[in-house]
Amino acid sequence: MKIIVDGFGGDNAPLAVLQGCELAVKEYGVEIVVTGDQETLKKTAQENGISLEHISFHHAPSVITMEDEPTSILKEKADCSMAAAFQLVKDGKGDAFVSAGNTGAILVGATFLLKRIKGVKRAALASVIPTATGCYLLMDCGANVECRPEILTQFGVMGSLYMKKVMKTANPKVGLINIGSEETKGGELQIAALAQMKEAPINFTGNVEARELPKGAVDVAVADGFTGNIVLKLTEGMGSLMSTKLKELFGGAVGKLAGALVLSKIKALKKSMDYTEYGGAPLLGIAQPVIKAHGSSNPKAFKNAIRQARDFAQSGMIEELGNTVSSMKKPENGN
Amino acid sequence: MKIIVDGFGGDNAPLAVLQGCELAVKEYGVEIVVTGDQETLKKTAQENGISLEHISFHHAPSVITMEDEPTSILKEKADCSMAAAFQLVKDGKGDAFVSAGNTGAILVGATFLLKRIKGVKRAALASVIPTATGCYLLMDCGANVECRPEILTQFGVMGSLYMKKVMKTANPKVGLINIGSEETKGGELQIAALAQMKEAPINFTGNVEARELPKGAVDVAVADGFTGNIVLKLTEGMGSLMSTKLKELFGGAVGKLAGALVLSKIKALKKSMDYTEYGGAPLLGIAQPVIKAHGSSNPKAFKNAIRQARDFAQSGMIEELGNTVSSMKKPENGN
Repeated sequence: MKIIVDGFGGDNAPLAVLQGCELAVKEYGVEIVVTGDQETLKKTAQENGISLEHISFHHAPSVITMEDEPTSILKEKADCSMAAAFQLVKDGKGDAFVSAGNTGAILVGATFLLKRIKGVKRAALASVIPTATGCYLLMDCGANVECRPEILTQFGVMGSLYMKKVMKTANPKVGLINIGSEETKGGELQIAALAQMKEAPINFTGNVEARELPKGAVDVAVADGFTGNIVLKLTEGMGSLMSTKLKELFGGAVGKLAGALVLSKIKALKKSMDYTEYGGAPLLGIAQPVIKAHGSSNPKAFKNAIRQARDFAQSGMIEELGNTVSSMKKPENGN
Repeated sequence: MKIIVDGFGGDNAPLAVLQGCELAVKEYGVEIVVTGDQETLKKTAQENGISLEHISFHHAPSVITMEDEPTSILKEKADCSMAAAFQLVKDGKGDAFVSAGNTGAILVGATFLLKRIKGVKRAALASVIPTATGCYLLMDCGANVECRPEILTQFGVMGSLYMKKVMKTANPKVGLINIGSEETKGGELQIAALAQMKEAPINFTGNVEARELPKGAVDVAVADGFTGNIVLKLTEGMGSLMSTKLKELFGGAVGKLAGALVLSKIKALKKSMDYTEYGGAPLLGIAQPVIKAHGSSNPKAFKNAIRQARDFAQSGMIEELGNTVSSMKKPENGN
């Protein structure tokens, strides 16, 4: 198993990337190719005592930044570390792609260099979100702001397969994010999507209200990219508020004493709400495994993103998704 | 100041309603008329030792339930406690309306019995949401699933006036809920609304990401009713997850000891996140003050909803909103 990692993606690159690769090699026994400016990578590894066992470099002279136009990955930044990583996966020199870089550029690069699976209308960015009881897959998280009903249905199929094959969830429950549980709720998009999703080859449990998501009511929550992005970011924002409030609670001398008494529980709570435990966001619908790590990923987050890329590549999900999509009846208004 | 309260709205009616009214009379010195079946109201007050000083009853024989069609308030349930409350306010027998009943019926009753302010295109349900630093007004919370840009602009104007006149926030910051801060972010609705809101007579601070809402980034957050409802319910769901996690943290013998050490802080935290502290959801754009209390309101929540109704009625906001709306330039594609 060989994972291709963009060495210059994310706020903490290339140091956190290399540290994450080192951890992943040790823990998962994978081979890794890191793309980017070879001299800088070598120097960073050397200066920080990072072992390069099972890690090799592939030179790419430039970097695509958060300010660059996503499409520049195909043009003036075609020699960047992210483009090089896509090219290696495309050429069969690696089994999966990982980057914490510009999300738009990852979408463009994946769609134009690796291509979508035949029959998939749109690739979707999926995030694994912690809940009270485990986690759920939220999609789309922002790749497709406006969607048609048949696209939401495909998201449900892709998310269900991902949870089953990669996350090993038996018979994943798929819900459509909506503003009520009744069939008449929502806008035209939700009403039409609900009818289609009932016919899809998934364990569809109907509309799910946003209030139920943190409880773990579903394993896959489907929405257009606008709604999904709101859910993702509000979940992050509320999580961060929760951390702040906990810090306040256990501040001061007495607070610290109280905190010491329940330290193991606080640690368990933090771990259960920690997005970095789940790795990154898989881009589903692309012909090869693509993982978008969080922009602010630390070494542990990179390590987990590499594990997720390995699991994705090993799962056989992409082949099964291709078969499922091609066997599905086309909706009458589809294209 | 006379507040008209629907005696049979909400899960805990009529007992919690009457207890809330008793508290409100004591604390705020208001006069209250409670609508509903007079015998049941009298009996409930008597059996529970509720003082009826400054509280009178107005008989209405039927009740509109959560299962009833909202429009039934105009037809077969025209004799319900909620309809009677609207009629009293309409006839000038009271200054404001409070109910914890069927939200759809409140929208229908308010729009058809009390009417919208001249020039207001749609009434919006607004919720006061606690944040790290105080609270913000979220609107629309679900009354208008699909909106046009000029409707969002009016929501911004209404919300801004409410925060200024009723909540006494100086120069309230108004943001448009969107999936990024840049002007090109979002769907057609958000892009067009952003341009219009810049020209509106409000302190408009541009797009606001959902991640920033719990931090208190804005005083008024504007969205279509679908998006607003998702934000409202996810905030509730995450708040409830937070409560569950806190209970786990302070469970068991050692946990209880830790909890005792920081008890005052836990109480303050709970209070700061408690929606009942802020009363109910004002329905903005209606020609008279309407407050929708939460369906599960307890006596304290009813008391605070009555305070909010009083503040709303005293604020002069409705007159000012009428003047502001009529002075605003009509957008070219408006109607």
